[in-house]
Amino acid sequence: MMRLVALAAALALAGCATGPAAEAPAGEQAAAPSLQDILDNSPATDWRTLDPERTLYMELEAGRVIIELAPQFAPLHAANIRALARANYFDDSRILRAQDNYVVQWGRPDDDPRPLGSASESVPGEIAIPRAGVEFSPFVDPDTYAPEVGFSYGFPAARNSAEVWLTHCYGMVGSARGEGLDGGNGGQLYVNIGQSPRNLDRNITLVGRIIQGMELLSTQRRGTGPLGFYETPGEMTPIRSIRVASDVPVGERTNLEVLRTDSATWATVVDSRRTRRDAFFSNNPVNRIGVCNISAPVRPVN
Amino acid sequence: MMRLVALAAALALAGCATGPAAEAPAGEQAAAPSLQDILDNSPATDWRTLDPERTLYMELEAGRVIIELAPQFAPLHAANIRALARANYFDDSRILRAQDNYVVQWGRPDDDPRPLGSASESVPGEIAIPRAGVEFSPFVDPDTYAPEVGFSYGFPAARNSAEVWLTHCYGMVGSARGEGLDGGNGGQLYVNIGQSPRNLDRNITLVGRIIQGMELLSTQRRGTGPLGFYETPGEMTPIRSIRVASDVPVGERTNLEVLRTDSATWATVVDSRRTRRDAFFSNNPVNRIGVCNISAPVRPVN
Repeated sequence: MMRLVALAAALALAGCATGPAAEAPAGEQAAAPSLQDILDNSPATDWRTLDPERTLYMELEAGRVIIELAPQFAPLHAANIRALARANYFDDSRILRAQDNYVVQWGRPDDDPRPLGSASESVPGEIAIPRAGVEFSPFVDPDTYAPEVGFSYGFPAARNSAEVWLTHCYGMVGSARGEGLDGGNGGQLYVNIGQSPRNLDRNITLVGRIIQGMELLSTQRRGTGPLGFYETPGEMTPIRSIRVASDVPVGERTNLEVLRTDSATWATVVDSRRTRRDAFFSNNPVNRIGVCNISAPVRPVN
Repeated sequence: MMRLVALAAALALAGCATGPAAEAPAGEQAAAPSLQDILDNSPATDWRTLDPERTLYMELEAGRVIIELAPQFAPLHAANIRALARANYFDDSRILRAQDNYVVQWGRPDDDPRPLGSASESVPGEIAIPRAGVEFSPFVDPDTYAPEVGFSYGFPAARNSAEVWLTHCYGMVGSARGEGLDGGNGGQLYVNIGQSPRNLDRNITLVGRIIQGMELLSTQRRGTGPLGFYETPGEMTPIRSIRVASDVPVGERTNLEVLRTDSATWATVVDSRRTRRDAFFSNNPVNRIGVCNISAPVRPVN
């Protein structure tokens, strides 16, 4: 009676799947090319290999979380996080906080400091960059928070006539701070795990996004202290290390590529998710898409 | 060096907290009345007690999940879900699916059917209602998916010149279906656990929202089958029962009240979250709010 395929065709391409999200199971005929069809037929040149110097591996007991840094937007933070990682600053660190529908935060606990190595104790806020010359594939759809949204170098972003900035979408990673835009240094990071808190845009520096292992963070037991902080050390999931991928032996790396968001394939993907041509959406084909309702597909390098 | 209070003042009032979300911890001075201040100073008449006939208790080993039904929008589904609950249809049912950044789905497994009692096997889709006479507190802010958004009877909603409908925000509960708007009956339900999949609006019937226990669902281990379905019964969290609150002995009920979204206090809450007057937001006070970035506060009845 109730079909387990319920919601099947409604599948959103959203968040940070390790690869393209699954399409409708066998037995359901799609009325239009599936996302997988589109990706399978894309030219290799529409993909880019992850740069290991811009990639972080966070090692949990449950698996590896992979972060792509965005030095195009936050070069000082990216450099400082790399310096911290190379000082082994994050070895034996912790997940510190999980607040439902908001953020999971991790890094060096305040009460368990480590030497900073060549890293700085404070990094200036990097909340927007000048618009001129910045790659940007705009959406035509209205956005609640910004005059224009789209994708830039693979990341969700917004812009006005002068500046471009990253947007706080699900899976985006920011640098936790206290008061003041320079109140952080990348030694504690957070990821958005619920409805995208776009009111943080241009108030905190975003440094990249989770491209694999998001489910290891989003399922962390929520903390019971104020703001979702854990109240006892025993509740905090250990982090073995955070390393720059280029410092990891080649044989231990996870080799991924990301669809270029300035490619024709990306435009086709956006269109296919913007207007839903499969039967499930026959009542309302939508014809709109939000900047946080899609993300750049990721797949293993063959 | 790194302050654990990072992000403190950035706290979003979002999702389905069991009560008003915590504000900045002691030591931080708010520049404006906090959300808690606003709620503490609100008149009792701005709150409504949950109607037990419109309230479901889903009992998991880890605790109780509470759903407020929305018969204003989905009367047939609300009635059918009540009938199913009263036929003990959901006793020993299961969480069937957890797809990251999308939905958790639960209910009667297809391969373990139960008698429907007086309930129907299929219920017509209830995706919008005529606009005339429907309570609606509009937002002034633009929305990606609808001409106008706001809150209606405590639920996030949208409208055009003719109709009003509920919106797929984090924590909203829908009735899973196969093909066809009438392809479900409330025997399997889902909740949005990530970026709000607003493309489902007017494509699937929403039946209510989680008002307590959301974190018990959002942290479910993600399923590894297509669409996040679990692949073996052992992975599926058991559901002891789903009952209508009015069928539960008074002493075993959870007595909650919800802020009325047609009240002056709600307008003040929305304004306080729309324009952030605390120091953390001094770079960008925002002055915008999305319909899925706020929810009606819930608190215990004193």
